[in-house]
Amino acid sequence: MNAPDKIPFADQFALSREPFPASRKIYVPGSNESIRVPMREIALSNGELITVYDTSGPYSDPTAAIDVRTGLADVRGAWIAARGDTESYNGRQRAALDDGVKNEAQNNGTTIERIEALRAEAAGLQRTPRRAKSGMNVSQMHYARKGIVTPEMEYVALRENGKREWMREYLGDPAREARLRGNPMGARIPDVFTPEFVRDEVARGRAIIPANINHPEVEPMAIGRNFGVKINANIGNSAVTSSIEEEVDKLVWAIRWGADNVMDLSTGKNIHTTRDWIVRNSPVPIGTVPIYQALEKVGGVAEDLTWAIYRDTLIEQAEQGVDYFTIHAGVRLAYIHLTAQRRTGIVSRGGSILAKWCITHHKENFIYTHFEEICEIMKAYDVSFSLGDGLRPGSGADANDEAQFAELKTLGELTQVAWKHDVQTMIEGPGHVPMHLIQANMDEQLKHCHEAPFYTLGPLTIDIAPGYDHIASAVGAAMIGWMGTSMLCYVTPKEHLGLPDRDDVKQGIIAYKIAAHAADIAKGHPGARARDDAMSKARFEFRWRDQFALGLDPQTAEDYHDETLPKDSSKEAHFCSMCGPKFCSMKITQDVRDYAAAKGVSEQQALNDGMAQKSAEFKAVGGEFYVPVSSFAGPPQERQHPLGGPGEARVGGPDSSLTTKG
Amino acid sequence: MNAPDKIPFADQFALSREPFPASRKIYVPGSNESIRVPMREIALSNGELITVYDTSGPYSDPTAAIDVRTGLADVRGAWIAARGDTESYNGRQRAALDDGVKNEAQNNGTTIERIEALRAEAAGLQRTPRRAKSGMNVSQMHYARKGIVTPEMEYVALRENGKREWMREYLGDPAREARLRGNPMGARIPDVFTPEFVRDEVARGRAIIPANINHPEVEPMAIGRNFGVKINANIGNSAVTSSIEEEVDKLVWAIRWGADNVMDLSTGKNIHTTRDWIVRNSPVPIGTVPIYQALEKVGGVAEDLTWAIYRDTLIEQAEQGVDYFTIHAGVRLAYIHLTAQRRTGIVSRGGSILAKWCITHHKENFIYTHFEEICEIMKAYDVSFSLGDGLRPGSGADANDEAQFAELKTLGELTQVAWKHDVQTMIEGPGHVPMHLIQANMDEQLKHCHEAPFYTLGPLTIDIAPGYDHIASAVGAAMIGWMGTSMLCYVTPKEHLGLPDRDDVKQGIIAYKIAAHAADIAKGHPGARARDDAMSKARFEFRWRDQFALGLDPQTAEDYHDETLPKDSSKEAHFCSMCGPKFCSMKITQDVRDYAAAKGVSEQQALNDGMAQKSAEFKAVGGEFYVPVSSFAGPPQERQHPLGGPGEARVGGPDSSLTTKG
Repeated sequence: MNAPDKIPFADQFALSREPFPASRKIYVPGSNESIRVPMREIALSNGELITVYDTSGPYSDPTAAIDVRTGLADVRGAWIAARGDTESYNGRQRAALDDGVKNEAQNNGTTIERIEALRAEAAGLQRTPRRAKSGMNVSQMHYARKGIVTPEMEYVALRENGKREWMREYLGDPAREARLRGNPMGARIPDVFTPEFVRDEVARGRAIIPANINHPEVEPMAIGRNFGVKINANIGNSAVTSSIEEEVDKLVWAIRWGADNVMDLSTGKNIHTTRDWIVRNSPVPIGTVPIYQALEKVGGVAEDLTWAIYRDTLIEQAEQGVDYFTIHAGVRLAYIHLTAQRRTGIVSRGGSILAKWCITHHKENFIYTHFEEICEIMKAYDVSFSLGDGLRPGSGADANDEAQFAELKTLGELTQVAWKHDVQTMIEGPGHVPMHLIQANMDEQLKHCHEAPFYTLGPLTIDIAPGYDHIASAVGAAMIGWMGTSMLCYVTPKEHLGLPDRDDVKQGIIAYKIAAHAADIAKGHPGARARDDAMSKARFEFRWRDQFALGLDPQTAEDYHDETLPKDSSKEAHFCSMCGPKFCSMKITQDVRDYAAAKGVSEQQALNDGMAQKSAEFKAVGGEFYVPVSSFAGPPQERQHPLGGPGEARVGGPDSSLTTKG
Repeated sequence: MNAPDKIPFADQFALSREPFPASRKIYVPGSNESIRVPMREIALSNGELITVYDTSGPYSDPTAAIDVRTGLADVRGAWIAARGDTESYNGRQRAALDDGVKNEAQNNGTTIERIEALRAEAAGLQRTPRRAKSGMNVSQMHYARKGIVTPEMEYVALRENGKREWMREYLGDPAREARLRGNPMGARIPDVFTPEFVRDEVARGRAIIPANINHPEVEPMAIGRNFGVKINANIGNSAVTSSIEEEVDKLVWAIRWGADNVMDLSTGKNIHTTRDWIVRNSPVPIGTVPIYQALEKVGGVAEDLTWAIYRDTLIEQAEQGVDYFTIHAGVRLAYIHLTAQRRTGIVSRGGSILAKWCITHHKENFIYTHFEEICEIMKAYDVSFSLGDGLRPGSGADANDEAQFAELKTLGELTQVAWKHDVQTMIEGPGHVPMHLIQANMDEQLKHCHEAPFYTLGPLTIDIAPGYDHIASAVGAAMIGWMGTSMLCYVTPKEHLGLPDRDDVKQGIIAYKIAAHAADIAKGHPGARARDDAMSKARFEFRWRDQFALGLDPQTAEDYHDETLPKDSSKEAHFCSMCGPKFCSMKITQDVRDYAAAKGVSEQQALNDGMAQKSAEFKAVGGEFYVPVSSFAGPPQERQHPLGGPGEARVGGPDSSLTTKG
């Protein structure tokens, strides 16, 4: 562990707060001034203003004053208060055990000192928790089912729409539109997202808005198959390395590059304090796996876990403002032996912890048996379920096996239990799945989980790419995203090898933005394609700076360009280093346009007529079609053709040359 | 251009010649000692010997003496001579124009000096060309159709099979086998590749073996939908940068990482000499786009191109040993105006050059009108056609449009013309295609081109990832590879931005090895999956060094691992940095195995019996199933449940808990 020195935040966040090139933060107003939906506006050199979805929060707004020691400004506080169904209360007493310290005796002074120092740094982040008043249910799903359109729902609608007026210019002709409308694969994505549409999707359980009432800093977003595909980035310290300072930096870094959600998978010491830092400074929903902390509380001995300790941990984290919990309720005693013949057994941490507990006690999973009690906690804070796939495959060889699908069916049953309590729910999925088995995962999930949002890790399509698993899994992620998965959990280049550093996090996120965007385009999300068209237009017009600004990673694109053509003038050059000035196909295309504009169709007609006539002539004499050799074909002897007569070249069989598409 | 200094080859190739960790080059003998098929054997720490497909040629064989100034040892010479259907002859006179120099006047002394110096370095690489004896056809397709199984075909069969005896251990149970057999999507991949199977595929035109009789150094390989999916890497200098020294190094570097084919896309000066260097030092088939050199010969003025110059260039390159030519015969005058309304017009260099020529002269594409004359040249050297898609889309918005498919139909017609001459043929495809339009590309190609191998560039699934287009396109490449594409042309991170350097080439190749392997696994290539299983087994058993050795990039995997756990001991540690010692799910899984082995099924039975009985009881009294709260559930007051009775937790609706998969 590092020493608890004061951190030079200014330095740490300098880079992460810098706006993207040619971009500024704008806020689209809702039905009242408390609703201000952030977006990123890109000003192109041709005067176009392109607006894109923005996950980066206030960090990319130069006018926002941010002190990570006191946390972000409140977004939802007034909305929560206005509903009048919550109360603030003295939360549970914070214990040393919350940060992994069993008792003084167990730990040397340094550890205690370190923990106290870190807690001191988190002092400004403490809040008095709120919970539902007795008998109340404060979940977005509960409001939705009562027909209430919350500010969160309106916010989500505006955010999914974006400012799409600018897109009209890119709609193109009807034929292109039809071709590019996409294949939604069963999704029903509207042209315009209305607050009522969002309410209906949440009411049906087809979408969730992860938003704990104790996380008022969150900028509401939706996870559902009829919305844009979202991505999640995992951060967290670990028993072996990392520090709290890195975690907050990773959070800001992750949302800068496009993480829609972040999961804090911290283990080891200082878990509670780390979470204070992350939640209070996060504009995106934060998810956790509470069993990790519960295990720390029992010194890492899985069989010592109890419902009491687990339950207390859920309340502890709900009070801090965690937006969704990964709950491994589907790891049932009855399924564990199904993993015995697997190539890689159980690879989910939570799954293996619970399997160990079940087989040690020969008892059913206590999370399963106490599931409805957990629902009571979730609806008192509006924490969403992320039903964990503890038995997911850890290799292509184990994909879609009996253990995996047995658990999936149970998750479907539990989804209905959660919905009975109006608790928002999504379902976690694999993992490692060869391409030909991906569709079955989606089909089974939709069938058994009643369209509850699917949230998959990858899947990785092969096992032999350590160091490049962000790519091996981006392939599977793009496909399953198209097929209906609502959120993709990223994989970094360090998967299977080590802990991701800052750049690994970025690499993983970019790979997953690519996968999610490819899925949105294939599904036909109405807001997806125009950014690509704007990029293509910028390419065709050699507006290099606009190309960089429209890319997922402007700086890297510009750096790569400059490696070959560093001269600033080349930014306006009407050619690129790939082809050089003479070979530029885009330049030549302009000539084609002039040509087509001038005489395209008539030319075409003349050509067809000529061909038809010639064809008739020669068919009459030999049933084969001849094209006179052009006069530019070089000296006579080179025109001799072994098969055709002198000066003639036979092309194809009878009529084949008549095939024209003019 | 760099000065023509002597190159320190020893240094340059030191890295590229180093064998991969735990690997050695082996040669599998064929029916006679002239057939020695190279493979890479990986020796794992558990004694297993894993054999994988090896494209790296003699460069990864420490016993091979290599001097890039004299070229690689001959592999096929004796086979070609034995057929007795070729003759050596004095090839065409080499002209200054072949290296882009029109005449002394046009160029200053330095240029001439430079060119002469480079030619001098290529002196040891000059060969007397061979061609078919008058009236003979020396294409592999011609032999195949005559029922002749050539050594090349036997070589390919052995190479595709690999030494797969070791794979039996990974076959697993029948259920897993069925699941993982793959979905060939119409391909008919045999369990064992026989020389006769290869002959039949080549005879049908469903596969090609690119192997110019003037490239005896080539290690034969097959491109076809019923073989493993192959990848191509492009190298080449350019009008703006690069040097010959880099090109040969790029070649060796590219095949080291797995390029099955390499295309030399050089433009500018010294094209002829560059090609001598590359072909003579290449164990993989080399492809070119002859129109690039032809254009250089007319000073870059497209409209000055003539059939005479183009034809002479084809012969020039056929004599040097180029294995396949990209020929843009499908860019017909009648189709050009179809590109006028496109977002990005014509983006193929060759396509735009020919479009310019067609519209300037208002004449049909001279390559189309002289197509059969080209067939005569191809079959005299066994150069394969790679029918270029000059009208491929340059953006998702232009994908699958009229222009693209009009050209594809023409390529299908030309395929039949080529087959009439027994000339091996593959078809080039896009490019930029959103996921939902990829299948249509494959369907149209199979339908119109009669299963001639499809060779696609990517396709890129989105347009907004400059700097990461190797990932954006790996998604499309994996999908179309699964659907039936035979070879994938790689895309590097520099696509759309600049010229790839050494690392870009590697990054592009690894991304495409991932795509090709994912496709092989999904298609069910019998040799594909076991390497993944060996990796998964190594993971489960914490054999870290074996994991590195089995990966596509062993060094990077080891470096990433060591960043977090540098201690050498951790190479044997039974945990990894992701979870640390306490949390290791793999470790816990071992307990599960012991448990299952000891009492799995009986335990399971007892459990089911118990549940069934309980279920019966409670159904009788209330139609709902109750699970007694476990005694470890903490103090009584915490057992109270708002919905169930004291000490009880209701789970799911009627019967839901009875669902067990035991």
